Amino acid sequence: MPEEDKPCPIPDLPRGPLCEYRQRAKFSWKALKQVLEDPNVIRIRYDVWQKLEREPLFAPLTSTLPVDQQKERAAKQVKRIAELKLDPQEIYSMDYKYRVRYLMSINEALHAVCPSMSVKIALGVGLFTNALLAMGSERHSAIYNAAWNREIITCLAITEVSHGSNTKRCRTTATYDPKTQEFIINTPDFEAAKCWVGNLGKTGSMALLFAILHTSDGQNHGLQGFLVPIRDPTTLQPYPGVIVGDIGEKIGLNGIDNGFVMFNNYRIPRENMLNRAGDVTPEGTYESTFTEPGKILGAVLESFSAGRLGIMQESSNTLSHAAVIAVRYAALRKQFGPEKDGPEQSIMEYQLHQWRIFPYLAAACVLKASVFSLTDIYLATVQKSQKDSNGFELLSQIVSELHALVSSSKPLVTWTARDAIQESREACGGHGYLRAANLGELRNNHDPSCTYEGDNNVLGQQASNWLLRQWKAAKVESPVGTANFIERREAILGSNFDAIVRASGGVVESAEFITNCYEWLMCWLLRSTAEQLQHADKDGTDRFKARNDSQVYRARDLSRAYSEYYALECFRKRCLREDVAENLKPVLSNVYLIYGMWCIDRHLATFYAGGFAVGPRFADAIRSALLGACGQLKDSAVAVADAIAPPDWVLNSVIAKSDGRLYENIQNVMMTNPGAMERASWWKDIVPSKMKAKL
Amino acid sequence: MPEEDKPCPIPDLPRGPLCEYRQRAKFSWKALKQVLEDPNVIRIRYDVWQKLEREPLFAPLTSTLPVDQQKERAAKQVKRIAELKLDPQEIYSMDYKYRVRYLMSINEALHAVCPSMSVKIALGVGLFTNALLAMGSERHSAIYNAAWNREIITCLAITEVSHGSNTKRCRTTATYDPKTQEFIINTPDFEAAKCWVGNLGKTGSMALLFAILHTSDGQNHGLQGFLVPIRDPTTLQPYPGVIVGDIGEKIGLNGIDNGFVMFNNYRIPRENMLNRAGDVTPEGTYESTFTEPGKILGAVLESFSAGRLGIMQESSNTLSHAAVIAVRYAALRKQFGPEKDGPEQSIMEYQLHQWRIFPYLAAACVLKASVFSLTDIYLATVQKSQKDSNGFELLSQIVSELHALVSSSKPLVTWTARDAIQESREACGGHGYLRAANLGELRNNHDPSCTYEGDNNVLGQQASNWLLRQWKAAKVESPVGTANFIERREAILGSNFDAIVRASGGVVESAEFITNCYEWLMCWLLRSTAEQLQHADKDGTDRFKARNDSQVYRARDLSRAYSEYYALECFRKRCLREDVAENLKPVLSNVYLIYGMWCIDRHLATFYAGGFAVGPRFADAIRSALLGACGQLKDSAVAVADAIAPPDWVLNSVIAKSDGRLYENIQNVMMTNPGAMERASWWKDIVPSKMKAKL
Repeated sequence: MPEEDKPCPIPDLPRGPLCEYRQRAKFSWKALKQVLEDPNVIRIRYDVWQKLEREPLFAPLTSTLPVDQQKERAAKQVKRIAELKLDPQEIYSMDYKYRVRYLMSINEALHAVCPSMSVKIALGVGLFTNALLAMGSERHSAIYNAAWNREIITCLAITEVSHGSNTKRCRTTATYDPKTQEFIINTPDFEAAKCWVGNLGKTGSMALLFAILHTSDGQNHGLQGFLVPIRDPTTLQPYPGVIVGDIGEKIGLNGIDNGFVMFNNYRIPRENMLNRAGDVTPEGTYESTFTEPGKILGAVLESFSAGRLGIMQESSNTLSHAAVIAVRYAALRKQFGPEKDGPEQSIMEYQLHQWRIFPYLAAACVLKASVFSLTDIYLATVQKSQKDSNGFELLSQIVSELHALVSSSKPLVTWTARDAIQESREACGGHGYLRAANLGELRNNHDPSCTYEGDNNVLGQQASNWLLRQWKAAKVESPVGTANFIERREAILGSNFDAIVRASGGVVESAEFITNCYEWLMCWLLRSTAEQLQHADKDGTDRFKARNDSQVYRARDLSRAYSEYYALECFRKRCLREDVAENLKPVLSNVYLIYGMWCIDRHLATFYAGGFAVGPRFADAIRSALLGACGQLKDSAVAVADAIAPPDWVLNSVIAKSDGRLYENIQNVMMTNPGAMERASWWKDIVPSKMKAKL
Repeated sequence: MPEEDKPCPIPDLPRGPLCEYRQRAKFSWKALKQVLEDPNVIRIRYDVWQKLEREPLFAPLTSTLPVDQQKERAAKQVKRIAELKLDPQEIYSMDYKYRVRYLMSINEALHAVCPSMSVKIALGVGLFTNALLAMGSERHSAIYNAAWNREIITCLAITEVSHGSNTKRCRTTATYDPKTQEFIINTPDFEAAKCWVGNLGKTGSMALLFAILHTSDGQNHGLQGFLVPIRDPTTLQPYPGVIVGDIGEKIGLNGIDNGFVMFNNYRIPRENMLNRAGDVTPEGTYESTFTEPGKILGAVLESFSAGRLGIMQESSNTLSHAAVIAVRYAALRKQFGPEKDGPEQSIMEYQLHQWRIFPYLAAACVLKASVFSLTDIYLATVQKSQKDSNGFELLSQIVSELHALVSSSKPLVTWTARDAIQESREACGGHGYLRAANLGELRNNHDPSCTYEGDNNVLGQQASNWLLRQWKAAKVESPVGTANFIERREAILGSNFDAIVRASGGVVESAEFITNCYEWLMCWLLRSTAEQLQHADKDGTDRFKARNDSQVYRARDLSRAYSEYYALECFRKRCLREDVAENLKPVLSNVYLIYGMWCIDRHLATFYAGGFAVGPRFADAIRSALLGACGQLKDSAVAVADAIAPPDWVLNSVIAKSDGRLYENIQNVMMTNPGAMERASWWKDIVPSKMKAKL
């Protein structure tokens, strides 16, 4: 039976106090789950989780391990995962899209359980082999195979101590010595040490390293990739000339051994240069394979999109986990009530509480759809490019638009997850501060997602730049279709709140209204950003400064709005598909409205400043629609949370188990935490002296 | 020489790369420090820090200790602090205000170094004795003295597992038994276990416990306070009938042993009831001392204001630390530049980066002023009430206004600190994610401040309720003067952006403009909230629901605006004092503008919705003023950060040392972290099998 036809193995949930709300939902949460998440992805995830649940090495921890033990555990998990063979052999005979989606789904499942381990695998296997494939050639296939088969532990050494976002300014050098046919790798000083490199701190034996290539004629050929042996893979001892170490404790993800490395005129064979774009001859002449080596490097860096998509997939799950915890706790926690001595009510009944947490529940649903779609387009594009003999050309035709989408969506998803975790922590009060609630771990592990693979604020500029290019171009080039609205700019900017409401039949609670608002917002931000840049140009401001001074309230908001617009569109289109049952439509529309109105609410000032509306009606309409939709979601919220929740042991939150036995579960955790009721071993040292005398 | 006349002992800062920016400031950072922080408070803090710096027990840690060791360390620190006698004997002969401010300043200094320890002392010594004083009588003085002299470790047991904010619904009972003249303390089930009690988990021997009093006639006399022995103070073994334990690991503050306790018909002597408000006679009759026992309990709970003020003081320091780290790093970190191969520029030069971090630097300065002023009024009021024979009456006259100020300002300060830490973490990129950057510790330890001593969202409602009462009252009762603007409501609401700009001479960059905007905003929010409540009343909505449905976009924003208005006023008044040197005025005004415009920017939508302005001019004016002020602050920012920074070892951030040697300091930390360059002890377990075979 082909994978697709197997029934989706979603386990039932235990009965308990959450059923009070669960029963109020007018739909099946399992049916909803299969709309919000792809059935194939669900199947792969549950398959992974079932296998991991049996493994002692993956059992949730009850307290934080010392960092060295965290590294040990993650490294052993990486090894164990290889033994578990989670990737069935048959996927390697399937097409690229199917295979990579399968591997991505495995990664999602692993990340939800052990983020450090999943990042270690993603870096050391996925990104390393991707980059090697893009930059290397036949002569590197032994290393490629060894990395893929986990025979060596590998890492990507790009970032330096003093250069992160501005990779091009890295200062590690590779100087060719024709006498020995070797490259001499050198680190001028600690500022140029490769740093933050995952897998490098304690375990990696081979690095894919970026260094400035110098040939013996003194020419600088810019950044190139090299395979650099770091440690003997059989003993894990560093080679002479390599100063390598672990950077020490971090806020989270301490299972990853992030490292630094300095090279002291360290020699590697000529063949270790990755030569797809260009090569150094034995005599020492640099010969480029393509006429524009910068472009191929761009394509190589582009291959890091896979990394950003991975982060978005993981972060959308993190967002879901945070929202599920907040919603289940809000249903179970009762505090205050309408009558002085009457029953108390669930905190989910309070409008303020709904407004705090429901937008994150809605965001989790909507962003799942956009991350899935974006991944789909990405995979289809790469697959097409591989099949087509003219693949590279074809890929570059839509790579810009995909890059803009990824560059704006990665910030949106990671920031939304960040905010969801924090709001959830506060919405769960003191109990949310328990380690066993899992919000602290989520927060500390998620945090770097806003920084790595492109700092959110810097990365987002790639999207606004692309949009501005479309705005200024004679013809909009948007093969994915996300910028086609620019062609209608005049009509859009000629519109306003009143006209749009009229066009929507007087109803603001509609996809049409929300879409129209967004198109106006983007056009206005595009026009005002472009105008500001034009003025600066006239005034003689240099372009670098002009660009930087057009970010706040302009390009930055534009990038955000664009990613929200895309997410809402993806979700809307998903809901329109035939497989969506009628009884799911009200809740899906409810979720769409909450996320849409909530996002528009944050842009209200810009709408007003741009003259889109005057007076209270616009703000009132958006805010009433949002609060109304939140009130409507209340009776469905627990079922929606069930639809995006992983199994209890993966969610791993004592305050949000699906059985709803909140206080019994807390009691169990508190009473059984190691040494909970024992006297402290150090008790004698702290008894006040006067009391000691009485002993 | 009296304390006040001693020169302020602010140490010089080392020379280094930060001097490039430091030298651009047109003022002395030490002079600025003495405006932003009270010279006496500065002196006390440095005195404490000097003493602690010599103590091995207070040396900064380089990695996170296991939680049991964190508890051990904090408990030993508490003991060591008592030995260090940081509180000079002479302060106990000074007046209340001087003495308590002195003790609060010690707490601020301690908290900046070891938050767990400072909370343990604050709970076990400060809040416990405060509450005992307010609720108990002569017969409890032995316990009072023992707690004050650290002869016993104490705790406050109020919150239960299922009741936090709604304390009144606590279910632990104290039933009087006239036969033995004892109270029988009982916990009906785990949901009623006292929980989250600091110092209870491992160390406390005596609890001040809130329980529902039942007399033998079956009458329920509501919540009362009792002294309940938990453990033998000489052995720290729990007494029979007491099930006490530690709640386990938390997100942060793991030095505090938060505990839970259940009582199984546990007997305590009649005298252990705290009887200031009422008492049970030996025969078992409840006699209240005051006619309105509810009121005295209110006053007792009011005494917890001291706790909230403490949190605000600590949080304003946390906010400062986060801002200092972000500013120093932004000055030192260079990335990109105007010319392709030219020098890179400090990230502080980017407008977007200024806009991200300068508002927090400004907020740190402004909120320091409001927290100091608020504490001052509080202390003066309590002192006056103690001297006056009619003290209780007098106190209650302004206690409502103070309560409103504290209830809105505690959320403002704690949330601003929370956001500052997060923005700073992201603004410092990957290096901000190092444990040694200290932002993770700041975040995890600060987090519960948004919840404890009143969840921010719930607490803030106390302020809006008070303001609404003033709005509806025939006469505004605002002895502190913060609500006097309500008397001018008609004129204020009759005004708008254009009129206010005209009144300010066409200049928006002024205190007058900002104040006028705030008064309009508060009046509009008051009117619309009051109207909404009125409508609900007419529609027959019950008041509980009506109140809850008037929070979002209404009462909640009102509470926030009120606290911002108060903070800006306090800062403005501080800047007008005679001791402020002329050359400090530009930077102070700059700071004021940034914070004011930044806050107004967040309320823009409400201003527009309320009809305060139409079209782009208002938004443009606010946003240009903010960006302009940020640009102006750039050359002063490092000096402002110096003015609010603690000594390096207290700030404890490798990326923000005052010597500015960013990369040397990082190198030092990375190369010396324990085992940094050693092979992992578990290396054999993770070498891939195929590689092992080669051994």
